[in-house]
Amino acid sequence: MSEFSCVGLIGRLGSEAVAYSLKRLVAFLNERNVKILLDNETGAVVPDASVTRVRREQLPSLCDLVIVVGGDGSLLGSARLMAGTGVPLLGINRGRLGFLTDISPEDIELKVGEVLDGSYEREQRFLLQATVSRNQQVIGQSLALNDVVLHPGQFIRMIDFELYIDETFVYRQSSDGLIISTPTGSTAYALSGGGPIMHPSLDALVLVPMNPHTLSSRPIVVSGGSDIRLVVGEQRDVHPHVTCDGQVHIVTQTGDEVAITKSPDCIDLIHPKGHRFYQVCRSKLGWAARQASEGSAFNDFEE
Amino acid sequence: MSEFSCVGLIGRLGSEAVAYSLKRLVAFLNERNVKILLDNETGAVVPDASVTRVRREQLPSLCDLVIVVGGDGSLLGSARLMAGTGVPLLGINRGRLGFLTDISPEDIELKVGEVLDGSYEREQRFLLQATVSRNQQVIGQSLALNDVVLHPGQFIRMIDFELYIDETFVYRQSSDGLIISTPTGSTAYALSGGGPIMHPSLDALVLVPMNPHTLSSRPIVVSGGSDIRLVVGEQRDVHPHVTCDGQVHIVTQTGDEVAITKSPDCIDLIHPKGHRFYQVCRSKLGWAARQASEGSAFNDFEE
Amino acid sequence: MSEFSCVGLIGRLGSEAVAYSLKRLVAFLNERNVKILLDNETGAVVPDASVTRVRREQLPSLCDLVIVVGGDGSLLGSARLMAGTGVPLLGINRGRLGFLTDISPEDIELKVGEVLDGSYEREQRFLLQATVSRNQQVIGQSLALNDVVLHPGQFIRMIDFELYIDETFVYRQSSDGLIISTPTGSTAYALSGGGPIMHPSLDALVLVPMNPHTLSSRPIVVSGGSDIRLVVGEQRDVHPHVTCDGQVHIVTQTGDEVAITKSPDCIDLIHPKGHRFYQVCRSKLGWAARQASEGSAFNDFEE
Amino acid sequence: MSEFSCVGLIGRLGSEAVAYSLKRLVAFLNERNVKILLDNETGAVVPDASVTRVRREQLPSLCDLVIVVGGDGSLLGSARLMAGTGVPLLGINRGRLGFLTDISPEDIELKVGEVLDGSYEREQRFLLQATVSRNQQVIGQSLALNDVVLHPGQFIRMIDFELYIDETFVYRQSSDGLIISTPTGSTAYALSGGGPIMHPSLDALVLVPMNPHTLSSRPIVVSGGSDIRLVVGEQRDVHPHVTCDGQVHIVTQTGDEVAITKSPDCIDLIHPKGHRFYQVCRSKLGWAARQASEGSAFNDFEE
Repeated sequence: MSEFSCVGLIGRLGSEAVAYSLKRLVAFLNERNVKILLDNETGAVVPDASVTRVRREQLPSLCDLVIVVGGDGSLLGSARLMAGTGVPLLGINRGRLGFLTDISPEDIELKVGEVLDGSYEREQRFLLQATVSRNQQVIGQSLALNDVVLHPGQFIRMIDFELYIDETFVYRQSSDGLIISTPTGSTAYALSGGGPIMHPSLDALVLVPMNPHTLSSRPIVVSGGSDIRLVVGEQRDVHPHVTCDGQVHIVTQTGDEVAITKSPDCIDLIHPKGHRFYQVCRSKLGWAARQASEGSAFNDFEE
Repeated sequence: MSEFSCVGLIGRLGSEAVAYSLKRLVAFLNERNVKILLDNETGAVVPDASVTRVRREQLPSLCDLVIVVGGDGSLLGSARLMAGTGVPLLGINRGRLGFLTDISPEDIELKVGEVLDGSYEREQRFLLQATVSRNQQVIGQSLALNDVVLHPGQFIRMIDFELYIDETFVYRQSSDGLIISTPTGSTAYALSGGGPIMHPSLDALVLVPMNPHTLSSRPIVVSGGSDIRLVVGEQRDVHPHVTCDGQVHIVTQTGDEVAITKSPDCIDLIHPKGHRFYQVCRSKLGWAARQASEGSAFNDFEE
Repeated sequence: MSEFSCVGLIGRLGSEAVAYSLKRLVAFLNERNVKILLDNETGAVVPDASVTRVRREQLPSLCDLVIVVGGDGSLLGSARLMAGTGVPLLGINRGRLGFLTDISPEDIELKVGEVLDGSYEREQRFLLQATVSRNQQVIGQSLALNDVVLHPGQFIRMIDFELYIDETFVYRQSSDGLIISTPTGSTAYALSGGGPIMHPSLDALVLVPMNPHTLSSRPIVVSGGSDIRLVVGEQRDVHPHVTCDGQVHIVTQTGDEVAITKSPDCIDLIHPKGHRFYQVCRSKLGWAARQASEGSAFNDFEE
Repeated sequence: MSEFSCVGLIGRLGSEAVAYSLKRLVAFLNERNVKILLDNETGAVVPDASVTRVRREQLPSLCDLVIVVGGDGSLLGSARLMAGTGVPLLGINRGRLGFLTDISPEDIELKVGEVLDGSYEREQRFLLQATVSRNQQVIGQSLALNDVVLHPGQFIRMIDFELYIDETFVYRQSSDGLIISTPTGSTAYALSGGGPIMHPSLDALVLVPMNPHTLSSRPIVVSGGSDIRLVVGEQRDVHPHVTCDGQVHIVTQTGDEVAITKSPDCIDLIHPKGHRFYQVCRSKLGWAARQASEGSAFNDFEE
């Protein structure tokens, strides 16, 4: 008997490929006599009498595993929902990069079967909490598994802000904004912006400036327990936004403060046995594997 | 009758793969009744009675085409030798990146056959001339098809120098050195160092600082006709080197001047019909092609 | 008698510092018996009976010099207006970086006086023309002195597009967008985005990808005469924008084509005598000057 | 009575400025009745009868504070010597960047006086230990406060190696080498190479590839307790070197293994009261301070 007897399913909407994988998953879980819960939105695309529909918010209290079918974006949304509940997440990849959703759709029966049989790896990831305050009043708040970004909302407009770390002033900056990323997010938007890759187990944050005017502004890595505080400066017809995981947006104005700290609530990710972070990096980023093919090494610049 | 009736062959030494391709090439050229010349070194690895051996320096005056088998490095050495002679170069790729050597070894008969039949593209590339002077006396000189690099010789030692462009002072810099690259070289060492890609037809040079202390030092692109002048500064137990195409080294000392200008001598490269620079970039650098596979586009950071 | 007998003035609005400099400039030009024209908007902040007010569009046909007081942004707007008219532009710096506006406000009388006396340098800069077409119909068009940017409009949304250069397919890209910059713009937004510095006299363009998913996407430098074409791909709830000089916006949709070519119309910039591009770089970017101060050189990493 | 009753002095040789500061320091310490020890080399430049000369290796057992006069390089050498002894280090800056040596020479009496009076901050920094093995035999070993670098020894020669982190294979790489840096070293060579800034208190390492062929190779940040292992690959006439802090060199050959782990021995740095890491960054890297001067903010790209 599997430790996972009730599984919630969340799928990205508007994709036939996702719908196909969801149906295949439902069929497989039925075969394994696992109880299935679908949130109402996902349920609309899987018209199967054998599954129960609930509100997405009910999933954490009713399931002991949630499987997400979609891209990393789909998993991010589910992660913020599951944070602190102890219910782990498993991702079936129907998106592009797939650092979080690490099961290929063709491996659904094999890999989900192994997980149900107890053969998996469980890994904890921390989230950030972003809190926006105006005149000491909280006006917005959200969790983020990947990143919190302060940005101009509209493109091609610079913003001005001050950065404080652990109540120490760091700099005033004019730029397209700042990415504050967890290790989990370090292979997503922060990487495109020039940040370093951080191993998922690292207790650290990276702050990546976006197109800063000051060319010597560089990514800064600080302890995961740091208090990050941004003060929104004077702007020209721009309302800077705080965006969490690219999905939750809070609009700010001059003088607002954005506090970013580690959330007390974590999430647990389930990986197939043998999952290796650096192997995903090699595959996704095209890093070289061990065996050099004939004639392939270090001869480009030499006779 | 082909316009190429006498072909010189140059191969990278010490590689069985190169020797194999050379023999296959000799067999094919014999079949086509093309006269073959080998330079003495290459001849040593192709013990074939049907070919004539000459000194490498004699090749330009005796052949109407030179085929190089090896990596881009092998082609660079041959290019400096052929510059200004009007004898074109064709490269069979036995190295890694292969921006210059664009025929695969398995396509030798097909592609070289097409070239002999007159079906090819001919492209002119300019070279740099680096001249090192001490007290107004020239102490060293070399051509470069890819790049001229001023560097510390030994690693992990910074050097200090001044840069002038068209007799205007630009900056004094402490760094690991400076790469001055042609468009041809912009996809080689300069690219690793953070320089831009320049289309091969562009009449421009790029100057790429290597690990500069001043973080705001950036690659600078100037007209191909610019006069670049470096003045070697005071050093600490370091003898800065000038290296052309990674192959020719000139040792400098404090006060030496390095003048880098476009050489009046060009080389001609032969490409198979339909050769496209950006296609090579896509292939070598992993840029995305036109057709997006299902579910692959722009969904990573979105739900 | 100065060759500049009628001078148009354009000032950035909403700045007391600009208004102060404008008044000082009006006083000085009156003293020199130069006729002064103000566009209506600028005129509102300089209530001086001695000046004539005209519509901004009339300035090119009525003046033989236009002086802009503000930041580089103010000069960009005026440049697009003056392009092709032969009327040169002079900039008084009231902004930050000031690569284009190179007279300090405290030097107004001295430097503008020299210019009126004929002691100045005149330099031609080319502009880009961006044309957006939908089903072969032009739906928007603008000049740009600095750059044309394709971007998602809203922040934190990727866009998908294809790039063609001289009718050759280059790549499909998912990113925050692409900057196409002139040499003039290479020290502005393109530089923040990681592009190289290009000397203003260079006949070239640089294409700088913004936060590309594909980490091997790099700035590409091509000839100034290149035909750049972008095809807007399928998007998710995003309407990519084309923005010229950060000031003119055209909203696109899937399938639209953006053609970017060199405009036949140029502008002329007036600089004080002795103006040097690399000196501005040293000053703005903090590059090191010639004289090393005591103890300052190459000893950081060595004993 | 100060807790520091016997102070060792180490100065960078061959600099008159250092000799001047050393003499001023000797005079001041004499005045304060502090016992002074000079290592033999430093003693040669300070011919003062009042000081005792010892071998440098004896300093840790005889002093309770060591003051280093020179650049960061001088402090690095002393730090490796003092590691694990508990004797703290104080640096007088006579070099350039000065992230480690934070007292200006003109402040010697004021700041050293405060330290003797007990008004200072003490901060612990960890070191790396690099161990090179050949056929399971250790052939070389060194500590490093800043960084361990694997590189080709000679310039313009690529090397080939494999990287393992915590016994997991990461990648094979052809490049100019790899920098493994502590947080302390993250503002030195690793920063020039494109690495992030890491706060000195962070328990992490960063691995920065130098001019890698694979453009998607990026800095990787891992836990400070990680086991880093490099395996030297096949080379072409190159003997890769392992260099610690730019000062200690170990020559390797194909098959050698380089193990890099946190050393159990730390060093203590003494800073003047009120020393702030981010303030040093602002000063050294030109980051913007709080007060914006008139007209200086966010107007460059806007009208």
